[in-house]
Amino acid sequence: MIPALEELLSALSRLPGIGRRSAERIAFYLLAKPEEAQRLMRALTGLSKVGRCPRCHGFSEGGLCPICRDPKRDQKTICVVARPWEVEQIERTGEYHGLYHVLGGLLSPTSGIGPEDLTLAHLVQRVKEEGTEEVILALEPRLEGDLTAMHILRLLKPLGVKVSQIAHGVPVGRDLEAADELTLGRALKGRIPL
Amino acid sequence: MIPALEELLSALSRLPGIGRRSAERIAFYLLAKPEEAQRLMRALTGLSKVGRCPRCHGFSEGGLCPICRDPKRDQKTICVVARPWEVEQIERTGEYHGLYHVLGGLLSPTSGIGPEDLTLAHLVQRVKEEGTEEVILALEPRLEGDLTAMHILRLLKPLGVKVSQIAHGVPVGRDLEAADELTLGRALKGRIPL
Repeated sequence: MIPALEELLSALSRLPGIGRRSAERIAFYLLAKPEEAQRLMRALTGLSKVGRCPRCHGFSEGGLCPICRDPKRDQKTICVVARPWEVEQIERTGEYHGLYHVLGGLLSPTSGIGPEDLTLAHLVQRVKEEGTEEVILALEPRLEGDLTAMHILRLLKPLGVKVSQIAHGVPVGRDLEAADELTLGRALKGRIPL
Repeated sequence: MIPALEELLSALSRLPGIGRRSAERIAFYLLAKPEEAQRLMRALTGLSKVGRCPRCHGFSEGGLCPICRDPKRDQKTICVVARPWEVEQIERTGEYHGLYHVLGGLLSPTSGIGPEDLTLAHLVQRVKEEGTEEVILALEPRLEGDLTAMHILRLLKPLGVKVSQIAHGVPVGRDLEAADELTLGRALKGRIPL
């Protein structure tokens, strides 16, 4: 195989969910359609413009992100997520109309990630300055997410703001079998009276 | 969503086998790892170097391709394929050690693709000039592949070269169910006495 093709295959194979066969299909497609390769290159170049919003730390192309700029969003509610792309996942539900705060990770004593490595101080400052009424935690229902949630609760409780957590439970439309024990345990604890 | 991210998602979603969800996973991965985005951009830039081998019309980075340059390949056998990436599929078997000839497509009266649109004249010229002893046709066992195979047979028979076709049949390690009727029909016709 010629080196240029081998390099493309190896670059593509490193992407998540792309095996060698998928990489080949994509590489041959890009060779057959140079205009698609150009489009992808332009899009990748555009990534260098992507920075972080100074208010919520979500993705932004300079200045405030589109959500923080939008006056129609509920300015009194902040949803806290660990990673910037989780904002998009929540947006997709169409169920949330408030603001976000991206922590930049989760507390992890084993990985040496402490409160000062996250945007926690800025969250506290925002709640104070923005007159936030509710903070919704949308963090992984695992050890590190729980640890981070408890830490945030301790920080925010003194400010008198309402702190809630998204419900964890059995995915909609799935069999009970599809849920692992931890999820099922959460679903039981978070049961709703009928 | 910010425009730069939207553009990347749309460019990725156009690739074969990549849906919206896979595109998101890849985009967020590339945002988190700028060095991987750089690597992919470099590899895409390298594609502009990929041309065609003047002898076999397979992929090349200028001049003869690695296979045509390799004196250890059997110079008396040519395997004919429709598309340049099919060379790689055959190479992967490790069962073939001869040369290739890439047609650039298949004859298709309905799409208006005639003999002059393919590298057929060059194949004939090569067989004459290179003293080829066997031409192996590795074309799709469908209408257009068969049409092309018959055409090549007519062109090459007068030259006294042996022309063969790869066997079509039930994929190894698969149930009979896995083969469509056309394949199964071919497998029956091409049965081997035991």
